[in-house]
Amino acid sequence: MSSGPTAPLAVSLGDPAGIGAEVIAKCWDNRARFELPPFVAIGDPRSIAAVWDGPIEVIDGLEEADTAFDVGLPLIQLAAAQADTPGHPSMAGAHCSLDSLEIAVGLARSGSAAGVVTGPVSKEQLYAIGFSHPGQTEFVAERCGVAATNVAMMLAGPTLRTVPVTTHLPLALAASALTTALIESRGRAALRGLQRNFGIEDPRLAVAALNPHAGEGGTLGREEIEIIEPAVAALVAEGWRVTGPHPADTMFHTSARAKYDAALCMYHDQALIPLKALHFEEGVNLTLGLPIVRTAPDHGTAFDIAGQDRADPRAMAAAIRLAAQCGVYRTPS
Amino acid sequence: MSSGPTAPLAVSLGDPAGIGAEVIAKCWDNRARFELPPFVAIGDPRSIAAVWDGPIEVIDGLEEADTAFDVGLPLIQLAAAQADTPGHPSMAGAHCSLDSLEIAVGLARSGSAAGVVTGPVSKEQLYAIGFSHPGQTEFVAERCGVAATNVAMMLAGPTLRTVPVTTHLPLALAASALTTALIESRGRAALRGLQRNFGIEDPRLAVAALNPHAGEGGTLGREEIEIIEPAVAALVAEGWRVTGPHPADTMFHTSARAKYDAALCMYHDQALIPLKALHFEEGVNLTLGLPIVRTAPDHGTAFDIAGQDRADPRAMAAAIRLAAQCGVYRTPS
Repeated sequence: MSSGPTAPLAVSLGDPAGIGAEVIAKCWDNRARFELPPFVAIGDPRSIAAVWDGPIEVIDGLEEADTAFDVGLPLIQLAAAQADTPGHPSMAGAHCSLDSLEIAVGLARSGSAAGVVTGPVSKEQLYAIGFSHPGQTEFVAERCGVAATNVAMMLAGPTLRTVPVTTHLPLALAASALTTALIESRGRAALRGLQRNFGIEDPRLAVAALNPHAGEGGTLGREEIEIIEPAVAALVAEGWRVTGPHPADTMFHTSARAKYDAALCMYHDQALIPLKALHFEEGVNLTLGLPIVRTAPDHGTAFDIAGQDRADPRAMAAAIRLAAQCGVYRTPS
Repeated sequence: MSSGPTAPLAVSLGDPAGIGAEVIAKCWDNRARFELPPFVAIGDPRSIAAVWDGPIEVIDGLEEADTAFDVGLPLIQLAAAQADTPGHPSMAGAHCSLDSLEIAVGLARSGSAAGVVTGPVSKEQLYAIGFSHPGQTEFVAERCGVAATNVAMMLAGPTLRTVPVTTHLPLALAASALTTALIESRGRAALRGLQRNFGIEDPRLAVAALNPHAGEGGTLGREEIEIIEPAVAALVAEGWRVTGPHPADTMFHTSARAKYDAALCMYHDQALIPLKALHFEEGVNLTLGLPIVRTAPDHGTAFDIAGQDRADPRAMAAAIRLAAQCGVYRTPS
C-alpha cells in the first residue's frame, strides 16, 4: 500500500473548459526549469490537444509513467469523456472533472500514485450536476474515509501558510458556523500537517480573530472571547505552541509572518486574501489530515482566458513540486 | 477660511498611554529624512516628555508653528490634561485623546491648520467614557457637519488604496449592514476623493465581492447579485469607471492592483488585511468626503510596546506627508 519514492503524481485535469489542461501541459513543457518529478494527467486527451500541440502519451497504468514522461505528457484517459470548448463550460464537462478527480484519488489511495494534484473545477457547474460537497477537498476527504471536520485546507506560499477554519460558505454564515470544537480540530490538523507534511517538529500556529481589532474586548463582537480563546487554550493545554486570537489585519506583514509556521484563519477570504496578495503566482492548496498527499494550484478555472495560451503554469508547478516534497515527510507517526 | 499652502498640520496625540507621542516625536527628530512639512502636536507635553527627551515648544497659536518647528516639536497644550503612564491606559487618558482630537479638528475647520493627522486612540477606552461614534472618522465627520454615510475611510499605501464600505462592526453584522445605497455612497466618496485628494481625473474603482468566489453565481451567497451589482451598475450609469464585484482574494496581487486606483471593500478586514500585508510600515488612513484633510497612521495604540522606544514612526510620517500632499489638490470643485 505504501507509495514508493519513485511513484509518479496523479494530476486531475479539472474542468475541461478551464485552464487546467493548459497549465498541466505547460508544466510538462517546462518540467526541467520547474524541477518537476514525473506526473500523469487524468482526463480526456482532446481537452489538452485543444490548447497544446505537444506530445501526449496515453498510458494504461502508472507503471508506464516514468518512461512515457521522457517523451510526452503521460495521460490516463477517462472512459466516457467529452471535451469542452475552452471557455465554454457544460454539465458534461463537469462530469469529466469529477471522473478525473475520482480516478486520481483512487490511484493515490491504492499507492500507485505518490499523491494527487487536482486541477481547477467550477463549483457552479459541479453543483449543477448534483455534487453535494462544498469543494474538492471535502470530496477527497470522504473518498479517503476521513470526516470533513478532521481535514484542513492549507494555502502555502514561499513565506506564508494559512489554514481556513470555515471555507465555502456565504460570509454571513461564517460567524455562526464557528465552534470551539471546529477551531480545535482544524488547529490540530494544521499542527500535525506542519509536522508530517513539512517536517516541522514543534510547529507554531497563530490563530486569527474573526472580528475587526480582535473584537476590541468584546465591543466589536464576542466570538473571540466565547469561541476562539477557549480553542486556543485547549490546544495550548495539549502542549502545542499556539497564540491568538490576533487581529487579522496585523498578522500578515513580513515581521509578523516570521513568528509562526501557519496562520489559522476563521473564513475563506481571511486566509486567501493575504496568501494571494503576497504569493499569487505560486500559491498551493494542500489538504492536511488525509492518508494521501493532495495539493492543488490556488487558482480557479479562469474560463475567461481559457484556450488563449495566456494561463500562467507557475501555481500548478508549485502544486506538483510541493506534492512531491510532502511525500518526503510521509513517515508513519 | 481657506488654509494657505504654508499653514502647518495639526497632529492629535491620541491616547497618552499609547505610542502616539513617541511616533510624533520621532517624526520631528527625523523631519528632514522623512521630508515632513511643519506640524504641531496637540496634547499634554508630559505625555511626550515621558517617552522622549527632545525639545518641546509649547505655543499658543498655529501662527507660531513655523518658527517653533525649527527649534523643537511645536505643541498646543490641552487645558485639563492628565498624563498616563505609557502602556497603562485610563479613562482620564481617553478624555485627553478626545480633547486633543476635538482641538485638532477645530484648527483645521477654522483654516488655521492645513489638515489634521490623528494619533491612535483606544476605542475600548473611548467607549468606556461614553464615546458613541464607531471610530475617530465618524467623529470628525460629525464635527464637520457631514453625514457618516457620505464619508469614506481610505487606507493608502504606495501600491494600494482600499476603501471599506462597513468598518467597525462585528463580522456577523457586516453582511446585513450592506445596502446598495451605502455601497453607492461610499463608492462616490472614493471616486471623488481620488479626484480631489489625489488629482486623478477619471479614477478607476474596483468593487470587491462579499462572499468567497464572489458568491459563485449565487450558490455561496446572494449579496453580489442583490446588493453589490446594482450599486456597480448605478455608478457606471453615472459615468464612473467602476468594475466588479470581483472575488476579493484575486484583487490584490501586483498585476490586479495595476488595474484600479482604489478598491472598494465590503468590510473592515477585507480592506485592511491586504493593505497591511503589503504596506504595514507605511499605511495611511485618509478620510474622504470631508471639507478638511484628515489622515492617520494605520496602526493602533500598541500599548504593549508603549514607552519602550520601540515604536516605528514611518506610518505617522507617511500620514503627515500624505496630509500635506492632499492639500495640493484641495481646489474648489
